[in-house]
Amino acid sequence: MRYGFGVDLGGTTVKIAWFDENGTMLSNWEIPTRTEDGGSQILPDIAASVLAFIQQQSLAPEKLIGIGIGVPGPVSHEGVVNKCINLGWGVFNIAEELSKLTGLPVKAGNDATVAALGECWKGGGKGCRNMVFATLGTGVGGGIVIEGQVLHGAHGSGAEIGHMVLNREETVQCNCGKYGCVEQYCSATGIVRMAKEHLQKTDAASTLRSIPELTCKDIFDAGKAGDSLALEILDRYYRYLGEFLANVACVVNPEAIVLGGGVSKAGQPLLDGAKKYFDQHVFHAAKNVRFALAVLGNDAGAYGAFKLILDAMG
Amino acid sequence: MRYGFGVDLGGTTVKIAWFDENGTMLSNWEIPTRTEDGGSQILPDIAASVLAFIQQQSLAPEKLIGIGIGVPGPVSHEGVVNKCINLGWGVFNIAEELSKLTGLPVKAGNDATVAALGECWKGGGKGCRNMVFATLGTGVGGGIVIEGQVLHGAHGSGAEIGHMVLNREETVQCNCGKYGCVEQYCSATGIVRMAKEHLQKTDAASTLRSIPELTCKDIFDAGKAGDSLALEILDRYYRYLGEFLANVACVVNPEAIVLGGGVSKAGQPLLDGAKKYFDQHVFHAAKNVRFALAVLGNDAGAYGAFKLILDAMG
Repeated sequence: MRYGFGVDLGGTTVKIAWFDENGTMLSNWEIPTRTEDGGSQILPDIAASVLAFIQQQSLAPEKLIGIGIGVPGPVSHEGVVNKCINLGWGVFNIAEELSKLTGLPVKAGNDATVAALGECWKGGGKGCRNMVFATLGTGVGGGIVIEGQVLHGAHGSGAEIGHMVLNREETVQCNCGKYGCVEQYCSATGIVRMAKEHLQKTDAASTLRSIPELTCKDIFDAGKAGDSLALEILDRYYRYLGEFLANVACVVNPEAIVLGGGVSKAGQPLLDGAKKYFDQHVFHAAKNVRFALAVLGNDAGAYGAFKLILDAMG
Repeated sequence: MRYGFGVDLGGTTVKIAWFDENGTMLSNWEIPTRTEDGGSQILPDIAASVLAFIQQQSLAPEKLIGIGIGVPGPVSHEGVVNKCINLGWGVFNIAEELSKLTGLPVKAGNDATVAALGECWKGGGKGCRNMVFATLGTGVGGGIVIEGQVLHGAHGSGAEIGHMVLNREETVQCNCGKYGCVEQYCSATGIVRMAKEHLQKTDAASTLRSIPELTCKDIFDAGKAGDSLALEILDRYYRYLGEFLANVACVVNPEAIVLGGGVSKAGQPLLDGAKKYFDQHVFHAAKNVRFALAVLGNDAGAYGAFKLILDAMG
């Protein structure tokens, strides 16, 4: 049996996990992400943690596969990061750098993309070779797996599906500077914004009116309880979500679409709602798509990162 | 030097081309596509033509790479076609079938996808590993190349970008049965339809009013001559085209977008117009995209088909 690391590098913590080659997570821990000095300590910290762990294992070197790492920003196929703003990083080859520090083979990918690979391997998309992973959280992120491989794109910006244009009449600006992006409607923030607009537009009674700080969960809860205004809001949400996912499916024709992020806690009603409008909007030949919820939660990144290096090293 | 065939199977003719392994087309000819009897004669006809050609060459068998073939319909990664309506075909493995008939290795792909591979290899996208090819003709077809490989999709329906939803308010039905597809605006047919609508909506003078059977070329010609109504129509066309291509780019992050089909005869103004709106709508990290015209014309399919088998056989 051989072993390796899956590393999920976030803006505040680094999750490090130790896997056997079958993909069983044997151990995992976290270290803080030190973003001071342009993030210059981040890779040395990871290297030190990984090397200390290896020393405890007293493994033969040939048993070590290497390190896969997911980073919060675009990463090219070759491992070059292109400004991870949250980490203070510029442009450099993170795979080469971490490999120098550890003496191990390293493969890097974008965190959302790597999480998609994790969900495809061991999560909601298990058994698929072609999958779209959409994380519906504060924003909308994405990761795409094609024939078992993550889609990096020419500049490491593949699967930025949260910034497809969904409504060209929008007057409110997206965080990215554009108008009418998917993220403005299909994120948790987007649902709340649409709900507030909807509540202002009508006088209809709703349990939502008595809630001072409306959250995404409140809206799904009210919907489950049969509040008709909440159901209208959710129907609009599902329509946006289904239509946008249908457009993604026309491009990549996936076998499964896996939904993760905070909004996915809504469960089955979310899958049913998205699927209903997806089926209306997708091209007939790309219709046969399984909708599933993400199941690996915060571990998806570590699983996917390990899968990256496992695939690279054969 | 080794050699092989690139076959472009269309609804009326089969284009067969003979290449050396560098991708030089040494010879090419056509045979009719016999669609009678559920298209049962098509593969035997191709096999007979190919075998007769080989016999004339008196080549050592180890010099033969095999046959790549593009077909007008969805094809899975394994070579299974899923109903090519124009050919009368059902569901079967065309690669296996043609291989049995010829004794040669065969690799099959969708025709639009294979043409994309051809343009990526020897045409407008030369030197790219990630490319989107959009054919703007009677309809809108597409082909996507990712890391040098064509995107087939789970059911052979990858890159059906002509059927992404572009306008959810549309009341006219697309040929596919949906409403508001890209094809309804971005095809040659779409420009003419939009132009007719525009001419009816206004009384403004335009040279277009005196043309009895308006064509796509008339509109581009009037635009070049400075007709202000034609320029308004084209601006609307470029806006739709740029926005839709930006959405595709958010999914796959290509290095180049190559435009082919009848509309691409409009040349540089088309590239400039599409790029202008593309840059407004695309996510910043996917912005650095080269726009180019297709250059291989009707030969793109044969080049791409040969590249398919060349890659498969190493």
